[in-house]
Parts: sequence; structure tokens; C-alpha cells
Amino acid sequence: MDWENIDLHAKQWVMEAGDKIRDSFQKTLNIQTKSNPNDLVTNIDKEIEQFFINKIRKNFPNHRILGEEGFGDEVSNLDGVVWIIDPIDGTMNFIHQQRNFAISLAVYENGKGKIGIIYDVAHGEVYHAITGKGAFMNDIQLPALSMRTVKESIIALNATWLMENRRIDHNLLIPLVREARGTRSYGTAALEMVFVATGRVDAYISMRLSPWDVAAGAIIIGELGGVITNLRGVRLDFLSSDSLLVARPGLHQTILNEYLKEGKW
Amino acid sequence: MDWENIDLHAKQWVMEAGDKIRDSFQKTLNIQTKSNPNDLVTNIDKEIEQFFINKIRKNFPNHRILGEEGFGDEVSNLDGVVWIIDPIDGTMNFIHQQRNFAISLAVYENGKGKIGIIYDVAHGEVYHAITGKGAFMNDIQLPALSMRTVKESIIALNATWLMENRRIDHNLLIPLVREARGTRSYGTAALEMVFVATGRVDAYISMRLSPWDVAAGAIIIGELGGVITNLRGVRLDFLSSDSLLVARPGLHQTILNEYLKEGKW
Repeated sequence: MDWENIDLHAKQWVMEAGDKIRDSFQKTLNIQTKSNPNDLVTNIDKEIEQFFINKIRKNFPNHRILGEEGFGDEVSNLDGVVWIIDPIDGTMNFIHQQRNFAISLAVYENGKGKIGIIYDVAHGEVYHAITGKGAFMNDIQLPALSMRTVKESIIALNATWLMENRRIDHNLLIPLVREARGTRSYGTAALEMVFVATGRVDAYISMRLSPWDVAAGAIIIGELGGVITNLRGVRLDFLSSDSLLVARPGLHQTILNEYLKEGKW
Repeated sequence: MDWENIDLHAKQWVMEAGDKIRDSFQKTLNIQTKSNPNDLVTNIDKEIEQFFINKIRKNFPNHRILGEEGFGDEVSNLDGVVWIIDPIDGTMNFIHQQRNFAISLAVYENGKGKIGIIYDVAHGEVYHAITGKGAFMNDIQLPALSMRTVKESIIALNATWLMENRRIDHNLLIPLVREARGTRSYGTAALEMVFVATGRVDAYISMRLSPWDVAAGAIIIGELGGVITNLRGVRLDFLSSDSLLVARPGLHQTILNEYLKEGKW
């Protein structure tokens, strides 16, 4: 497999998609709600996914595509080469803020991450990794992640998980938040993962994410020695919805052992 | 009083201070903790406050100065002209992220807001208002804030206030968060106030802020028809620490009446 060729195409398409999104700021958005009234989707989300699908089908007809908007393939395993795409991660921010959203694109081969690209369009920051070759932001190599204590850490997580909810006993997370230096919430999983990569935050926790939210970020974080599992400490399968705990090395183990009780809940 | 002259100086000093902060990204920060271990202060915070104080003393020797780092005057009333300055709002972000922090500068006369400037240095966005003349971002006039329901709103607030705490019964805020479209937390009061001004969020709530955190934002929001009070619906005095509820018109009243029970707690 010519990964450098695939990577070259992927990067170029992501930049083109970013230009299309920026152009769309001038036009009127056509906003629809999906099943949940707060799960928004715009015409731009759909157009960008179609753009990627057309490009991939034409250049790599044997590859399969798993995309948020559902225009790709029915993917029930990761055999062969699978592109996992979120055309706009953080659609609510895209609509309300025209910032704090990202394109997330990953390429997996037989379940193993090969290429991860996350493009923070509004800030002009491209995060990029090819497995085994390091992770980069705008072509500057990111340093490996070092250890940090909970007391020194900023944790990204949504307030929802600190109130009574169906997915986790919020009393497990409250002591972590009390001990940490601070919390933040940006409303975009792809960016919150790369904020761990750059040290802007030290850990990111979410209870319900889809493969396209996390597939690219996992490759980037993995290249820097960060750890990615669900909240029970189990490896993600990149096929089903799951919880997510991504953190610096050491910090991940501390959060899992001391606060999440090694997932024994 | 020649407010246009004062404004001209204030804007120029804020831009100069922004340049100094950007230059500091290259240097090593000298970080100290204040009374609370998470209340950080850097040499840059102190240098920038001193910079403003020197400029104001030289050009307007009769004006008084209330600054976060305490190099200004002992201010126990707002008689005459008082400058209220936070050299770096969001110091934790400044240290960890080199973004999501701001310079906040306000000028009050006999307790009334006259000039408010908030400079989001990393994003190159200057928010500016002279009372009675509208509010601007990078010299583009911001439109007046329109009404929005809680269901359509993004609320900025820190997770701390949704857990048991000494300042508010968190059970008052939880139903608001459940009803809202989403929550965000950026860790900088000055920017969270101007995010209300630009519609990036619809309301911002905090339980403990100082005059320098809110003095400039209140002027900017006020020019756009937004409403600023503490969480009991009482006007801020810009002299003491207080809680803060800032929101679009209508939304402010709804949050106060339906969720905060008109402050009867």
C-alpha cells in the first residue's frame, strides 16, 4: 500500500474541504435537526461528506468509507482500508460561532490506524499523523506528552456528565473535577483530543462518541504517547459508539484507577 | 471630559500591551501562585499592569486605577474617573494554551461605564464600546442582541457550579443546563462576556468574579441591549466580588425568574 500517496491525497482534500467551509460562512446555512433536536446538521456537513466520498471513490475504488452523515458504506468490520470521516465535528459551534469545529479524517487498515488528520478550519491549524512517523501541527513536530498530576491538569469534559445521567455515576467524576486545576468544555471531540496532543488540556472525557469523532484523534494522540481507551480502560473498536478517556501517559492510569475505579461499575 | 482623547490613548495602550504579551510567548514564564494554588499569576500579568499604570499616571494624573495585580490605588468608591484593569484575564489559559485569554480595560466616571475594551490577543479580536456609541469588534459594529429561548441557547458556565458548592444550590442551575441546547466553558470571564456580545454563546454565568473581570464586558454588553446583573438580579457595583448573570434580553429575565427563582435563595 502506498501510504504516502494516500496521505498526499487526504491532506489535499482536507485543505480543499476547509476552503469550501470557509466560503460557506458567506452563505445562509440550511440547518436541520437529526433525531435529537440538539443534534444539528447543515447542508455544509452533507456537501463536505459527499465531496470526500466522490474523491475517495474515484481515486481508491477498493477502499470503504464510514462517514457521520451516512453517505458512505455500511461498515460492520474494519477489514481492508476504511476511511472514517466527520465532515464537521462540532456542528453546533459551526452554526453558533463559526469557530471551534474541525474536519476529522482517518484511514485505517485492518483495524489499525494509519493516517489521522484534524483541521481546525477557523484557526488554520492542521494536526496530522502517519502512524510511526510522529504527529505534527502545521508541519511542526509535536513533542511527546509528559506526565502531569491531576492537581496540575486541566480536564476537558461536558457539564452533562457531572449531573445525574444515564451513562455514568456522576459521583465518580466529581472528585476528579474537584482535584483538577480546572475544567473546560469546547463542544468538539476532535479538537478536544488534539488539545490534549498540544497540551492545551491534559485529559478529555466523554461518555458518548462515535467512531468518526475519535478515529483521527486517536492516531495523533497515540503518536505522542498519550493513552486512549473508553472509561472502563478498554481499547476502542472504531465501529461502535463508546465512552472516551484520552490523557497524558500516567494521568490516564491515575484517572482510571483512582477515580473511575478501574471501570468496576 | 475629553472622552475621545481618553479612548484614543486607551486603545493604543491596549494594542501595545497585546504586542508585549505576544512577544512574551517566546520567553520563559515565571509563574507564581496567589493565595489559592490554582490562582496563577505570571511576571507578564504584573508587567502589563505596571505598563498601564505608568501610562495612565503620566497622561491622566487625576484618574485612579483599580487593577487585578494590586499596583493601582486602594479604591473604595467610584467617584471621579477610575480605570479598572485586568492585564491578563484567563491566566491559566495564558499559561497552558497561549490562547483564550484577554486584556480587559474599562474607564468609569462616577460609577458609570464610559469606555470598555477587551482584546482577545491570540485571536486578534478587539471588542470596544464607548457608552452611547455602540459596540464594535475590530471596528465592525455589532448588531443589537435579539431574544432567544433557553432551548435554543448555549450557556457558558464552569462545571464547578453544577456540583455541590458554597455559593449556590447547584440544583437551581441543573434544570437550566438540561433545558439548554448546550454548555461551554472557556475559563475567561472577559471573553465569555464578549462571546455573549457576538452571539457565540447566549448567556454566561459565574458565581465569583472581581470588578476587573467584568467592568469592560458590562459596557460592551450594555451597548447591545444585553442584561448584566448578579444571580439575584441586582446591579453590580464594580467595587466588590459578586456573582454574574449576563445574557441576551428576555433570556436574562427567563433564567432569573424560572430557574434562579428571582434570587429568593
